[in-house]
Amino acid sequence: AVASPAIIASNPVVEWRLVSSFPKSLDTIHGAGDTFAKALGEMSGGNFRVRVFAPGELVPGMNAADAVQNGSVEAAHTASYYYWGKDPTFAIATAVPFGLNYRMQNAWMYQGGGIDLMNAFYQRYNIIGFPGGNTGTQMGGWYRRQINAPEDWRGLKMRIGGLAGAVIAKLGGVPQQIAGGDIYPSLEKGTIDAAEWVGPYDDEKLGFSKVARYYYYPGWWEGQAMLHFFINMDKWNALPKHYQAMVRSAATMADIGMMTRYDLQNPAAIKRIAIGGAEPRPFSEAVLEACFKASNEVFDEICAKNADFKKVYEATLAIRGEDYLWFQLAEHTYDTFMMIQQRKGLV
Amino acid sequence: AVASPAIIASNPVVEWRLVSSFPKSLDTIHGAGDTFAKALGEMSGGNFRVRVFAPGELVPGMNAADAVQNGSVEAAHTASYYYWGKDPTFAIATAVPFGLNYRMQNAWMYQGGGIDLMNAFYQRYNIIGFPGGNTGTQMGGWYRRQINAPEDWRGLKMRIGGLAGAVIAKLGGVPQQIAGGDIYPSLEKGTIDAAEWVGPYDDEKLGFSKVARYYYYPGWWEGQAMLHFFINMDKWNALPKHYQAMVRSAATMADIGMMTRYDLQNPAAIKRIAIGGAEPRPFSEAVLEACFKASNEVFDEICAKNADFKKVYEATLAIRGEDYLWFQLAEHTYDTFMMIQQRKGLV
Repeated sequence: AVASPAIIASNPVVEWRLVSSFPKSLDTIHGAGDTFAKALGEMSGGNFRVRVFAPGELVPGMNAADAVQNGSVEAAHTASYYYWGKDPTFAIATAVPFGLNYRMQNAWMYQGGGIDLMNAFYQRYNIIGFPGGNTGTQMGGWYRRQINAPEDWRGLKMRIGGLAGAVIAKLGGVPQQIAGGDIYPSLEKGTIDAAEWVGPYDDEKLGFSKVARYYYYPGWWEGQAMLHFFINMDKWNALPKHYQAMVRSAATMADIGMMTRYDLQNPAAIKRIAIGGAEPRPFSEAVLEACFKASNEVFDEICAKNADFKKVYEATLAIRGEDYLWFQLAEHTYDTFMMIQQRKGLV
Repeated sequence: AVASPAIIASNPVVEWRLVSSFPKSLDTIHGAGDTFAKALGEMSGGNFRVRVFAPGELVPGMNAADAVQNGSVEAAHTASYYYWGKDPTFAIATAVPFGLNYRMQNAWMYQGGGIDLMNAFYQRYNIIGFPGGNTGTQMGGWYRRQINAPEDWRGLKMRIGGLAGAVIAKLGGVPQQIAGGDIYPSLEKGTIDAAEWVGPYDDEKLGFSKVARYYYYPGWWEGQAMLHFFINMDKWNALPKHYQAMVRSAATMADIGMMTRYDLQNPAAIKRIAIGGAEPRPFSEAVLEACFKASNEVFDEICAKNADFKKVYEATLAIRGEDYLWFQLAEHTYDTFMMIQQRKGLV
């Protein structure tokens, strides 16, 4: 049955500018912004038009949240934890050390009240946010020397930011803020001893293996890293309700699209990296335990003085505890068995 | 900027009936159909109207694909592997023994050509399909006696269907087809020795722990299980392009919505089940190895006589091998460490 459209069902022309915090060279991450724009265009019959801008074209990538807040752009594709300096609560929506894994972060965000909890916080910045991409568990970065014991963090000059940097400092390391393009020469000259970036597919492009051969895992500060679409609250409120529904849905398309791209591209990249001479190494359990302890100290300090952080962080802890019990059964046992077969050359 | 809508952007009234293969009592699975319908309603300003029917209201749940094929309904929410009897190729879109896990299945479907590959197959049935829900790795079912060695499958009468049943038969077991409501009395009377269902949240409702105390994991025949929305090809082709885009997007919302609901609900359910007296037990590595070997024999037999199956199955194998190498690094090491902390009571 096909009838005339009611007035509510018309798709008005809406034109948005979306600032991405991620350069086009990071095609998997930047691409999630493109996925979002494309989905909105397609679902609105071409009338909800989102133009994606690379960092620096309108505003610097790290200023994306400010540009959304003050309305100079309608939307951004960014990482909430870039704004942890305003308030560490921003970080929880992306990743915190020893936090949730991918499945758990999604469970918290999409079903466990995470989206609403974060938006109750974001509204003070005139922002509403929706999940829009994930990297999965990241690698632990590139090191010019080995980390064999907790003491090896001492004095280590490492390019690492945010809450993870605070944990590194507690371990005796020296966190450094260095832009992506400056990491390679800093490692080459020995100005820094280590640097973390993302995972094989992105790291490979920067060629770190030539200047820091030890490629540690896991990135214990990013058991997953979720990106967000930030939208100016006034622009959001001005949208017809069915366009708001399209935004949520387009963000979800971008979210799953980015994770699946990584899961398809990382395997070949890690093999090329290893063949190229890098040495993937696991952090030992003793090293991870020391990092976990230091992380908990950092969280205790923040929780003692920031009630917002405490509330949101504790919501994630409840899911972390429950799911890490359950996932030990079917999921982990299945994957472990399959990995053993992989090592035998049988899968 | 807001202007008048172009004609393409109008949202005509479209009314679809969607048959679910899943009863309302399985609220997580059935709910994915509701999520799909709700999203389409919201994105179309209420004009794309999908009415969800429970199994038996229009057609039996297991006949959903036929109803879509012959156009007696526009759409279905179902499990592709229910139709493996028509052609085992149907099964691969849902789950096959020792197949992909959740992340890999998504990577294959959304980025690795899986959706298109399956649709090239489905079109012979006048169907187009999109992913629409997942259970994650399922449990291995309920057993009245222990499975300690591969020989213990011999003579075991087990409620299990599809390709998994063929593997059980190869192991010497006796697969049985029994409807959900008849499983409990069959276990109670000892007519069968074992039964598989889904996972803690769904299994708990059927009370199996009272009649079969051993609750094995993992469900090696369902490392994940992906559901689908099946749509009649003529009805699909009749949709405006922007409604087709909404359908894809709404299916993705349902897909992630179902997985996240399970990940939030299974932990509490497994605890209640264990407190209630059931005994969760892992299949031993030797048992799993025997099952893996028997599965590969079944696949070899099918591939030898079914070129469609071979083509699609081998596409999944390529991703399985690559990802089970990569996931050993960051993902698995992170999760393993966190699970150790969980056992220590630290998460």
